[in-house]
Amino acid sequence: MEDKAQIQEAIKSQGEVVRKLKSEKASKDQIDEEVAKLLELKAQLGGDDGKHQFVLKTAKGTRDYNPKQMAIREKVFNTIIGCFKRHGAETIDTPVFELKETLTGKYGEDSKLIYDLKDQGGELLSLRYDLTVPFARYLAMNKITNIKRYHIAKVYRRDNPAMTRGRYREFYQCDFDIAGQYDAMIPDAECLKIVHEILSELDLGDFRIKVNDRRILDGMFAVCGVPDDKFRTICSTVDKLDKMPWEDVKKEMVNEKGLSEEAADQIGEYVSMQGGMDLAERLLQDQKMCQSKLACAGLSDIKLLFSYLQAHYNSFFHNLFPLYLFLVSLHILSLPCYSAGVAPVTAEAQNGAPGEESVSVGSVAGGGRYDGLVGMFDPKGRKVPCVGVSIGIERVFSIMEQKAEASAEKVRTTEVQVMVASAQKNLLEEKLKLITELWNAGIKAEVMYKKNPKLLSQLQHCEESGIPLVAILGEQELKDGVVKLRVVATREEAVNMFEELLVIQCWLHVSA
Amino acid sequence: MEDKAQIQEAIKSQGEVVRKLKSEKASKDQIDEEVAKLLELKAQLGGDDGKHQFVLKTAKGTRDYNPKQMAIREKVFNTIIGCFKRHGAETIDTPVFELKETLTGKYGEDSKLIYDLKDQGGELLSLRYDLTVPFARYLAMNKITNIKRYHIAKVYRRDNPAMTRGRYREFYQCDFDIAGQYDAMIPDAECLKIVHEILSELDLGDFRIKVNDRRILDGMFAVCGVPDDKFRTICSTVDKLDKMPWEDVKKEMVNEKGLSEEAADQIGEYVSMQGGMDLAERLLQDQKMCQSKLACAGLSDIKLLFSYLQAHYNSFFHNLFPLYLFLVSLHILSLPCYSAGVAPVTAEAQNGAPGEESVSVGSVAGGGRYDGLVGMFDPKGRKVPCVGVSIGIERVFSIMEQKAEASAEKVRTTEVQVMVASAQKNLLEEKLKLITELWNAGIKAEVMYKKNPKLLSQLQHCEESGIPLVAILGEQELKDGVVKLRVVATREEAVNMFEELLVIQCWLHVSA
Repeated sequence: MEDKAQIQEAIKSQGEVVRKLKSEKASKDQIDEEVAKLLELKAQLGGDDGKHQFVLKTAKGTRDYNPKQMAIREKVFNTIIGCFKRHGAETIDTPVFELKETLTGKYGEDSKLIYDLKDQGGELLSLRYDLTVPFARYLAMNKITNIKRYHIAKVYRRDNPAMTRGRYREFYQCDFDIAGQYDAMIPDAECLKIVHEILSELDLGDFRIKVNDRRILDGMFAVCGVPDDKFRTICSTVDKLDKMPWEDVKKEMVNEKGLSEEAADQIGEYVSMQGGMDLAERLLQDQKMCQSKLACAGLSDIKLLFSYLQAHYNSFFHNLFPLYLFLVSLHILSLPCYSAGVAPVTAEAQNGAPGEESVSVGSVAGGGRYDGLVGMFDPKGRKVPCVGVSIGIERVFSIMEQKAEASAEKVRTTEVQVMVASAQKNLLEEKLKLITELWNAGIKAEVMYKKNPKLLSQLQHCEESGIPLVAILGEQELKDGVVKLRVVATREEAVNMFEELLVIQCWLHVSA
Repeated sequence: MEDKAQIQEAIKSQGEVVRKLKSEKASKDQIDEEVAKLLELKAQLGGDDGKHQFVLKTAKGTRDYNPKQMAIREKVFNTIIGCFKRHGAETIDTPVFELKETLTGKYGEDSKLIYDLKDQGGELLSLRYDLTVPFARYLAMNKITNIKRYHIAKVYRRDNPAMTRGRYREFYQCDFDIAGQYDAMIPDAECLKIVHEILSELDLGDFRIKVNDRRILDGMFAVCGVPDDKFRTICSTVDKLDKMPWEDVKKEMVNEKGLSEEAADQIGEYVSMQGGMDLAERLLQDQKMCQSKLACAGLSDIKLLFSYLQAHYNSFFHNLFPLYLFLVSLHILSLPCYSAGVAPVTAEAQNGAPGEESVSVGSVAGGGRYDGLVGMFDPKGRKVPCVGVSIGIERVFSIMEQKAEASAEKVRTTEVQVMVASAQKNLLEEKLKLITELWNAGIKAEVMYKKNPKLLSQLQHCEESGIPLVAILGEQELKDGVVKLRVVATREEAVNMFEELLVIQCWLHVSA
C-alpha cells in the first residue's frame, strides 16, 4: 500500500493533466482515460481513509457503447455478416468462459493475459482469449470434420489498454473459418476473397493484402545460412521491419543475435522483395531458394493461391486484386496502408489482427492456417485442417467513428419514420389510436410520453433525432377525419384522410 | 476428496444411467446432461490418479449454440428487435464484467450467485448478473435523464443449472426500458404493448398478461389485518399459489407464519379475483380496500394503464387484449398459459423471467418499474424513473426449438441460393468465375472446395442443406456459352445464357 501523502500528490498532478487536456480540447477518449486514472487514485485514497468513495466507471480497458456507436457497429456488422452469408457460412456461438485447461498451452507467453474467474467452488474457468480455440474445442467435442462458420463475439485480454488507439481489454473478434480436408488452397483463396469483399464494401480506403507462407520464410532462413536454432529469434528481429529501417534490423541481427554479416545481407535481399504471381515464379527459379524443399512447397502453394484468386476475382476486373507476396513474417501487418495478411500453414497468424499499434492506418484483418489445433483437443489426436480470417473489427469501428465525426451527416440512432404529434391539448387517446395503426402497418413511429406536450417540443424532438415525418392531430383535423402530414426537413404539409395509411407509407418513401 | 473406489462405483452407475437413456432414445439434452456428469466423475478420478484426463466439455451450466440453434435464435431476435425498433428504441452495450462494487447491494440474497473474477492485480470485477444494473450505472455515469433503449446480451448466474428445462448459468436477457420523468403510466402502457406485439408475432400460442402493483398488494395486506412486519413473509407464501392449492397456502400462513385465520380468509377472497378494468373499478369502490390510500393510488394507476391500453390496442380490435389484474405477487408468473407479468412501481419485478421452473408453459416475460435504482449510483442521489420489460428469451428459444423438432420442415442453417456445380472434371476455374459473378450480383452461392467433386455429391450437398438451385457447368454448356439451371426439389432443368444473371435471379424468386 502506497503512502497516503504520495497518493494525494499523484491526485494533484493527475488533476492537472486532466485540466490541461480539457483546456487543450483533447479528444474525449484521451480525457476519459486520464479521468479514469484520476478516479482510480481517488478510490485508493478513499479506501485508505476508511470511508469508501464509490467510483462510477467501467472496468479498466472496457467501455460502454452508446447509441451512436451502436448504430455504426450495426452497419459494419450487417456488411460483414452479409458477406459471410453470401459465401454460405453458418454461425455458432460458444460460452464466454471455458474450462481453464481448454485454454492452457494454446497461447504461449500471452497466457498471462488470460482473465481467470475466481475459484468459487466447482470448475476453474477463464474468459475466452479468442474465438479460434473455442472453435477448435467445439469441433473436437462434437466430432465435426467439416464446417464453414462465422462467429462474432467479444474476447478478453488483460493487456495494457490503449483505448485512444482502439485497443481494449474487451473487444470484438469477427472470424470466418473453413474446417475440413479439402484440395489445397481452394478454401484459403475464398478466405482472401472474403477479406477483399469486406474491405471493399466497408469503403475504408485503399488496402493491400499481403500473403506469406511460414515454409518460405523458414526455407529462406535456411538457404541464407541461419542456424536452425536461430530461426525464431531472427524471425522476431525481421518482424521489426515495419517499425525500424533495414540498417537497424541488420545491426540487431549481427550484433545482438550473432548472425554473420553475409547471412544478414542475403536475408536483406529477400525481404525487400514484393510482388504477385511473378515473384512466386521468380523465386521458384531462384537458384538459392531452390535448395530448400520447404520453400519450394510453400512457393508452389502460393502460386496456386494466386491462380485461384485470379480465377475468382480477375474474371471480370483485371489487375484489381491488390495481392502481394511479402517475404517477411506475418506479424508485420502495419504499414502505411490497410493491410490484411493471410498466411497459409502457420498456426499463429490468427493472432495478428488485434495487437497492432496504430489506428489511423494499420492492419484490419489477419488470418491463416491452423491445421494442428483441433487435434490438440481430440482424444485420439485426429486432425481437422482449418483456415480462417479475422476482421480487426475494433479498428474498423474506430475508423468508421472518425469518419462519422468528420462527416456533416448526423448518425441516426433510431429508425423512427413518423412522429405522432398533436397541436392542442387532450389528444393523447387519439394519438395512441393513430400510432397503433402505424405500428400495425409496420411503420416505425413514436409519440411523446406526456399528456400535453407542446407542438414545438415535439417538432424539436424530430429534428434532434432525424425523424423525417410528423403526423399532426388537431381538433379541426379530427372533426374532418383527416391527419396533417409534415415533412420535417422542408416543412411541406399535406392533409390526408385519417385512415389512409398507404398515403403515409408513400410519403415515407418520398421523404426517406 | 472422495474415496477412489467410491468414485469408480459412481462412474459405473452413471454409465448405466447414460446407456439406459440412450436405449430409451431420451432427448439429446437429457443425455448430454448425464454424460456431462459422467465426464466430471471421470475427471475426478483422473485427477486422483495423478495422470490428468483432459475433459472436453463446456463449463457447467453453459452450452454451445450449433448452427441450427443459431438459425432459430436469429429468427427470434429479428422479430424482437424489429418490434423494439418500430417503437423507436435505441440500443446500447455494456461490458460483460463490472466493478464488483457496482453490483454490490443490488441483488440481496441472490448476490451469492454472482460470478467474481480472480484477483489478478488491479480492480475487483464480477460478471454482470442482469442488464438492468449496468443500465442504471450507464445512465448515472453519463448523466442521462431520458432514453428508450433495448439491450440484448448474455448475463451470468452461478445458479443450479437445469439445462433440460432451459435454465443455464449463461443466458440471454432481452430488455426494453424507458427512462425519464414522464406522465404516469404512458411509458408503462407502451412496455405492455410491446410484450403483446412480440408474443403475438412469435406465435407461441395463447398468452395472458398479468399486472399488479406492489401498492395494491401491500394495501390489501394492511386492510386484511396482516401486521407490517409480516408483509414480506406472507407475500412469499402467497407466491406459492401457482404451485399449491389455496388450502395449503392458507395452512402455511396460519400454522407456520402465525397469521389469524380471519386475515387469511380475507386475503383468500382477494387473491382469487381477476379481471380487467372492471375489477380495478370494483376494488376502488370496495369498502375495505378504500381504507388504504396506498391501494387506492395503485388501483388508480392500474385503471389509467388499462385505459391507455384500450386506447392503444382496442382502437381496432375489440376485447382482444388479454390483460388481467391479478392480486397476487409478481413472482407468480407460471400458470398453464404463457404469461407476462408487468408491475408498475416495484423494483424487483425485473427478476421474474429467468428464474422460473417449467419450460413447456410458463412465464416468457416480466418487468416493472424501478424508480430508485439510478439514484443509487448518482453521487447526489438524483433519481431517474425507469420502467421496462424483459423477454424470457431462453424460454422462447426452447419453445421454438421444440416446435422446429416437431415440424416436418427442416431448419436451414445457411441462406445459400445457388450451388455452382460441374458435371465433368477440370472445371474449377470456370466454376470460380461463375460464382464470382453470382457473388457480385449479391446472390448467396457455394462451390465445393474440391478440384473434381462428383456431381452426385454436389447434388447431395444441396439436398442436405436445402439449397434450392444448382447451376451446372459442363463442357458442352461452356462451348455453347450457356449454363444449366436445375431446381433441386423438382429436378426441373433449363439452359440459360452464361451471363444471364437476371434469369438466375428470377428463378431464385420462383424457387424460394
